[in-house]
Amino acid sequence: MTKRIGIIGAGTAGLQLGLHLRRHGVDVTIVTDLAPDDYAGSRLPNTVAHHAVTVERERALGVDFWPTEDHGYFGHHYYVGGPEPLRFYGDYKSPSRAVDYRIYHPRLMEEFLDRGGKIEIRQIVHDDVAPLAARFDLLVVCTGKGPFGQMFGRVPEHSPFDRPQRQLCVGVFRGISQLPTRAVVWSASPGAGEMIEIPFLTFGGMASALVFENHPGGDLEVLAQTRYDDDPKAFRALALGKLRAHYPMTAERIEDERDFDLANGPLDILQGGVTPAVRRSHIVLDNGVLAVALGDVQATVDPVLGQGGNMASYAAWILGEEIVAQDVLDHRFVEHVEHRRGDRVLSATRWTNFMLDTLRTLPPEFLGFVQAMSRSRPLADEFTDGFNYPERQWDRFASPGRTAAWVAETASATDDAAVPALVG
Amino acid sequence: MTKRIGIIGAGTAGLQLGLHLRRHGVDVTIVTDLAPDDYAGSRLPNTVAHHAVTVERERALGVDFWPTEDHGYFGHHYYVGGPEPLRFYGDYKSPSRAVDYRIYHPRLMEEFLDRGGKIEIRQIVHDDVAPLAARFDLLVVCTGKGPFGQMFGRVPEHSPFDRPQRQLCVGVFRGISQLPTRAVVWSASPGAGEMIEIPFLTFGGMASALVFENHPGGDLEVLAQTRYDDDPKAFRALALGKLRAHYPMTAERIEDERDFDLANGPLDILQGGVTPAVRRSHIVLDNGVLAVALGDVQATVDPVLGQGGNMASYAAWILGEEIVAQDVLDHRFVEHVEHRRGDRVLSATRWTNFMLDTLRTLPPEFLGFVQAMSRSRPLADEFTDGFNYPERQWDRFASPGRTAAWVAETASATDDAAVPALVG
Repeated sequence: MTKRIGIIGAGTAGLQLGLHLRRHGVDVTIVTDLAPDDYAGSRLPNTVAHHAVTVERERALGVDFWPTEDHGYFGHHYYVGGPEPLRFYGDYKSPSRAVDYRIYHPRLMEEFLDRGGKIEIRQIVHDDVAPLAARFDLLVVCTGKGPFGQMFGRVPEHSPFDRPQRQLCVGVFRGISQLPTRAVVWSASPGAGEMIEIPFLTFGGMASALVFENHPGGDLEVLAQTRYDDDPKAFRALALGKLRAHYPMTAERIEDERDFDLANGPLDILQGGVTPAVRRSHIVLDNGVLAVALGDVQATVDPVLGQGGNMASYAAWILGEEIVAQDVLDHRFVEHVEHRRGDRVLSATRWTNFMLDTLRTLPPEFLGFVQAMSRSRPLADEFTDGFNYPERQWDRFASPGRTAAWVAETASATDDAAVPALVG
Repeated sequence: MTKRIGIIGAGTAGLQLGLHLRRHGVDVTIVTDLAPDDYAGSRLPNTVAHHAVTVERERALGVDFWPTEDHGYFGHHYYVGGPEPLRFYGDYKSPSRAVDYRIYHPRLMEEFLDRGGKIEIRQIVHDDVAPLAARFDLLVVCTGKGPFGQMFGRVPEHSPFDRPQRQLCVGVFRGISQLPTRAVVWSASPGAGEMIEIPFLTFGGMASALVFENHPGGDLEVLAQTRYDDDPKAFRALALGKLRAHYPMTAERIEDERDFDLANGPLDILQGGVTPAVRRSHIVLDNGVLAVALGDVQATVDPVLGQGGNMASYAAWILGEEIVAQDVLDHRFVEHVEHRRGDRVLSATRWTNFMLDTLRTLPPEFLGFVQAMSRSRPLADEFTDGFNYPERQWDRFASPGRTAAWVAETASATDDAAVPALVG
């Protein structure tokens, strides 16, 4: 039987779903407000790393255009400040990779078009809902913008916050030496914030994405409130000063301060905040057609653990498989989808929300866990590779007893693996 | 780490769970009110068939003491009465088997004891709850009797009925010739009820379990309300008359009416009704220990499709695996259990409740489906083997569109497989 699938939004979830469906010959249309040519001149939307599980799906879809051999990174350095700072390293089993979405999304759009997908470039307004619903057997909503995105109510049980938990300042910078073995540098400055430095492929080549996760009311919040455009030089001086004070593991690789700036110009920075929320997985439109929430629409997570994009890609894959497998796109269909994607989606949210709280309050059992990681390479490796599998991380953090049991099991193993040098 | 597991109730779920845990060396205690020696003199508790998926688990547990080669049956004959009665047959892929639980349960209790399990024979009263909770790391509740069984509230969303949907009369009978190839005879008498005849191993050998599912207010309801003990001869005459009028496919194998009687005596009959209900999967006891609902306690189903015992056995297996696999028996543990057992448990309930409604109201699309089965052996086979997999049946019956798609896909296949003879 033929199925006509409409996808609202051309983010990672929508595009990967579209490509998945095209590989199975499904009739699929993406509706989005940005044409491929519009991306190069647009503001940085975020700085999303794709973990190995996501890269693996890209390979399966035939869109791994940025091989990890050239652009990937291999693990996480951790830095936890305080009177006695901790530094340690954990390896992935397979590398991650971060590409500027202003490159990634238009490239996947072209590929989707080449493979027979249809794209309609337009703004959707309220009056478009009924006509769109009439054209498709299923609508997949993966942008919060516009009338569809507003239809999915928050699930209070899984949406504990009513405001952003971090004041974000996210930018793509040049002037920070790449590590000889590429890795994320994940730093925490107790009482002030966290910062994730990601090896990041942007227009000019490899640069450094810096995700400043600033605690509201703390010393770093000013980074989210100071406009680059108002005085670029002052912003750079401010950022440099904060890096030197809070995040030395990144600051120590800025060799010439005059080189430190946004990599491609003033559009390379994004400031604001995200209120984490889990929303209803689906709704029934007036004509009886189902609309399924995907990616950020189903679950909005703070970027502190880099879970949003990977969760969206995973959910898109599951949704694609079920659309292909099932004859009837009804409530039972959604049950199958939810049964398969639900735990990972929810675990990404729960683990991220747990860490947002824990990194702010630093309870002793968590500090004990961090110290155990700093002494046990196998534990740090498992934690690092766990960024691929939020449901496994949640198995480890859902209660203090679980963390203790995991540490007791893993940290006892000895390991002499070398830590990649920080400065080559 | 050591885990101490307490199981309340020694039904199929509790015993299979206990045996599973003993195979992994877990410390496990069953608390029940009936000693192995009490069973032979007790009333028939029900007449449960174990489908192949359950027999497979019994083999894995080393308790398949009643091989299907000797006692199993191989498919279902269907009879749907009315002006133009339909008769057709569907095969299992692997045989089912029904053993009198007054034989099965005490045998499994002995085996559990032999393998190091502990059994405490006693009634549990309210004051026992706290002391029992203090002795275990997890309590599994698989009997509705007593204070534990009352703790699990109904889930209204999945409990649509507030009273029994059938007036049941369940007995073990002799005097009905066994089919040359053993099979269930599953009959429907529109407007009056359904009856399931099951080849049934009881104390004296193979007999026939008859499960009369009588519609409230219909011609057959009297079977649930007439006491055998009051006048055995009158009851037998009544049952014979109703069989001849409503269920000819069974009645035609009663060669000498004087042989037709309860197989072992007056305890071989059970009358009453079951209100289908789904209950909370778990609760937290006052001391923080979890109590998990299993089997009938989690979901009570009408016996019309024989789903209760098989669902309970499946859920026990999953629960056993998760108890063995997980270090910490907390809420996250229950999430894993529910994620794995939930769809089958709920599908057994939904499919059964759907059929209770549908067999009473006989909507045209359902009659169309029955006619399609009567003409397509592959469809009848898939439906019959589907008794093993209620979640697959629910995939087929969750909406009329799903049934139509399944029929269109399956019924087109041609098949010449022989139907086993009804009379040898």
